[in-house]
Amino acid sequence: MSYYLKNTWYVAAWSEEVGREPLRRKLLDHELVLYRKEDGQPVAIGNMCPHRFAPLSMGKLIGDCIECPYHGLRFDETGQCVANPHGNKAIPPKARVPSFCIEERNGLIWIWGGDRGAADLDAIPDLSYLEEPATRTVSGSLHVEANYQLYIDNLVDLSHAQFAHADQLGVENFGNAELEVTEADEKVCVVLAIPDSELPPAMRAMAEEPEARGSFILEANWQLPSIVTNHIQFLKDSDEPVFKSFGTHILTPETKHTAHYFYGLTRRHRLDDPSVDDAVRAWHLRGFSEQDKPIIEAAARMMGDETDPVGMSTAPLPTDGGNVRARRILKQRIAEEAG
Amino acid sequence: MSYYLKNTWYVAAWSEEVGREPLRRKLLDHELVLYRKEDGQPVAIGNMCPHRFAPLSMGKLIGDCIECPYHGLRFDETGQCVANPHGNKAIPPKARVPSFCIEERNGLIWIWGGDRGAADLDAIPDLSYLEEPATRTVSGSLHVEANYQLYIDNLVDLSHAQFAHADQLGVENFGNAELEVTEADEKVCVVLAIPDSELPPAMRAMAEEPEARGSFILEANWQLPSIVTNHIQFLKDSDEPVFKSFGTHILTPETKHTAHYFYGLTRRHRLDDPSVDDAVRAWHLRGFSEQDKPIIEAAARMMGDETDPVGMSTAPLPTDGGNVRARRILKQRIAEEAG
Amino acid sequence: MSYYLKNTWYVAAWSEEVGREPLRRKLLDHELVLYRKEDGQPVAIGNMCPHRFAPLSMGKLIGDCIECPYHGLRFDETGQCVANPHGNKAIPPKARVPSFCIEERNGLIWIWGGDRGAADLDAIPDLSYLEEPATRTVSGSLHVEANYQLYIDNLVDLSHAQFAHADQLGVENFGNAELEVTEADEKVCVVLAIPDSELPPAMRAMAEEPEARGSFILEANWQLPSIVTNHIQFLKDSDEPVFKSFGTHILTPETKHTAHYFYGLTRRHRLDDPSVDDAVRAWHLRGFSEQDKPIIEAAARMMGDETDPVGMSTAPLPTDGGNVRARRILKQRIAEEAG
Repeated sequence: MSYYLKNTWYVAAWSEEVGREPLRRKLLDHELVLYRKEDGQPVAIGNMCPHRFAPLSMGKLIGDCIECPYHGLRFDETGQCVANPHGNKAIPPKARVPSFCIEERNGLIWIWGGDRGAADLDAIPDLSYLEEPATRTVSGSLHVEANYQLYIDNLVDLSHAQFAHADQLGVENFGNAELEVTEADEKVCVVLAIPDSELPPAMRAMAEEPEARGSFILEANWQLPSIVTNHIQFLKDSDEPVFKSFGTHILTPETKHTAHYFYGLTRRHRLDDPSVDDAVRAWHLRGFSEQDKPIIEAAARMMGDETDPVGMSTAPLPTDGGNVRARRILKQRIAEEAG
Repeated sequence: MSYYLKNTWYVAAWSEEVGREPLRRKLLDHELVLYRKEDGQPVAIGNMCPHRFAPLSMGKLIGDCIECPYHGLRFDETGQCVANPHGNKAIPPKARVPSFCIEERNGLIWIWGGDRGAADLDAIPDLSYLEEPATRTVSGSLHVEANYQLYIDNLVDLSHAQFAHADQLGVENFGNAELEVTEADEKVCVVLAIPDSELPPAMRAMAEEPEARGSFILEANWQLPSIVTNHIQFLKDSDEPVFKSFGTHILTPETKHTAHYFYGLTRRHRLDDPSVDDAVRAWHLRGFSEQDKPIIEAAARMMGDETDPVGMSTAPLPTDGGNVRARRILKQRIAEEAG
Repeated sequence: MSYYLKNTWYVAAWSEEVGREPLRRKLLDHELVLYRKEDGQPVAIGNMCPHRFAPLSMGKLIGDCIECPYHGLRFDETGQCVANPHGNKAIPPKARVPSFCIEERNGLIWIWGGDRGAADLDAIPDLSYLEEPATRTVSGSLHVEANYQLYIDNLVDLSHAQFAHADQLGVENFGNAELEVTEADEKVCVVLAIPDSELPPAMRAMAEEPEARGSFILEANWQLPSIVTNHIQFLKDSDEPVFKSFGTHILTPETKHTAHYFYGLTRRHRLDDPSVDDAVRAWHLRGFSEQDKPIIEAAARMMGDETDPVGMSTAPLPTDGGNVRARRILKQRIAEEAG
């Protein structure tokens, strides 16, 4: 059985990653090259030239086509060879590479994981908040040496924040946290609420009242196939949040044991203040590159070829409720798809 | 059949390697974490958290326990989970990691390779000379990419010194060396005596009479499972040795094709002279890291998956008498253990 | 079936690569050590000592023999152990390493790929132009991560020059090139002629009349087992060439997926001008290391375990005529040899 769901949308890249320089990227076990046509439309086709197997990504763009670096065959956005510069210029009938159904929306380039014919544009997850006028999103991506679901486990499980990110998000009253996991419409929502808390270290630096006490609330929302959005907020009394951040986390399998991680943090305040951008990037570096990634990759190495901790674990915790449900929904969908 | 003997003691670390910072070490195919309790007692337990498989060695010590870096489960020296900081704090009944029987003695941390119940403290090899008052030992360790027995072959075979360490131990009259191999009580003793010799280069620098002639005698003593002590001495007439060094060499399998090598040199003279320490460290660097290790690792690569040269070699030499006997004793014991 | 022809000559090294320092080289799946005897004669014997498997190449030369770095066994040019420095000095009867039939000719050290007895000195390819008095050859070699035939494909197929080497050899009128492929006596000759052309960029810098127009002609001659010589010339009218270079390209398999590439460029003008040498080396660096190698290695990675593009390709081009014929001749010869 496939380790990923096919008939669904994945993220291939942040929009800004794709331009007029060919981008090599392996997604869902496929070697691809991504680029933009002259009108800006993104293209994703197979990266292996069908002539002598050079990567097209080492070649160059000629108008809306990509030219193989080895012998100059040109391919268009459909993957069809459209020019042979040699001899009688005849194009070999089968000279084509696969093409992939992609769509740019909300600053992301989405790719359909299954057959083109089944692609459903209406099924692209709505992340329109990423482009709302009064917001600003600082984004990035990481290549990770772990199965994509191990990352989803991490994101859905909010309890790890108190340990893996103790220097940023640790608070004293964590022991009294309350966890709520709900599931509806193939979505899972996890809320972890810590009552009567001080501000966590990461918020304190930016807060107007660093000594305030209130409710520290973390919320994660998972949806198919591997998208998590989360809020981190701090409520003083029942007022407006003193602090609120909104995170986007999307995983796309590269192979069974590697993945691409696309993340962003969207804010509604101090939009034009570059020092806030810097603070967000520092958090991404600290939290994602230096804390989560080494732990998740080390755990993946410990697990060897296995990728599902649910069956292996002899210490299941109630805090895994969210990720266990997310895995169950996905597994069910993959099984249905396999027939 | 196992490539190592189980019911015996191996060295896990030099005492000074283990402290209040968790130490990750793979020994006998097991992933371990080693640390000391607050009272200084060493602990060795499995390194893979049974919850989500993060390495405990990336976590931190809380009193006598180690806390998982990912979700904060705490484990004690027996490997039992003793604290779950989440929800109702209940500890999952099977939440434990393996624990290993270890014992600190003579500046070394020993680990029992078999079942705890069979561990016999009286069977720890007596290396008490390492702690005698009027001695000083300069020690170190190397991670090596070779089966541990290829290193033992090297140590028991004294004849390689004239070639691999020619710049340190080579002497002209080597052709007249006499070799004696004796075996008793599952121990092997090899003595190589070179008569009427000049001092070898390494000794000359430190000797009072650099031009003295006499007997250059190398002796190696092997014992189960993979311990070699050796003497290198130079006798002028039948007097006290002009020069004498006492070496300790212990190999512990990491995997079938990698090992940990623990070595030390014990002296009874100029105990407080740091320049002698420096000279010993220079010899360890030259002899062990730059001469033995590259040759043994290169030979291991040449041998591929095979680890026993005895059957492969078409050029057995009488000087292999010691290592052939040591391998035979060990092989016999492993076979007995396998039943 | 073997991936290479056995009863034929391969290049083991440029003459200047082999001297009184042992050279480790893997050729045709064999680990070898190459060196020269005191009279200058080259030797190639197996690199793995039959005693404890150390690489002889880590040892040193003693007269015409090589001494093992580990225990000092000495081997002569026939691979026979001729000295044992230990004990009674008896030489174990089977103490020998394989020896290989090699022959130095035209600045190259050739090695016979099959049984010694079948070696035919008259069959060494005639590359005597490499040593003609009024010539100078600038040579080099590369280790490549690709099957040797993928490199031969590259060399026989002249059409790639317009794309992979566009900055050096690209010309505007390439679309009107005429290709001629001929086959005779198990040799393949490919000529690509571009009429009414400007000088390609690489020639322009060195030409007396940079703005001349004429015929730009590339010719490649393949012969068994994996040798390509090529000419690149530019003819103004039917006169003497304005520019002519003569290249030698020889591939020797290391393993199925790696190879040694020996190349040289021979010239008949400005023999003593070191600036021309520098220009040739710059071209080798640019064309071979920075252009061909990355493309061929990337294509090899794309092909995985497969090494024959002919059957895999869905876009065969007429310009592959030469390399398809060369592969066919070689395949036929390998099949005959396998009986």
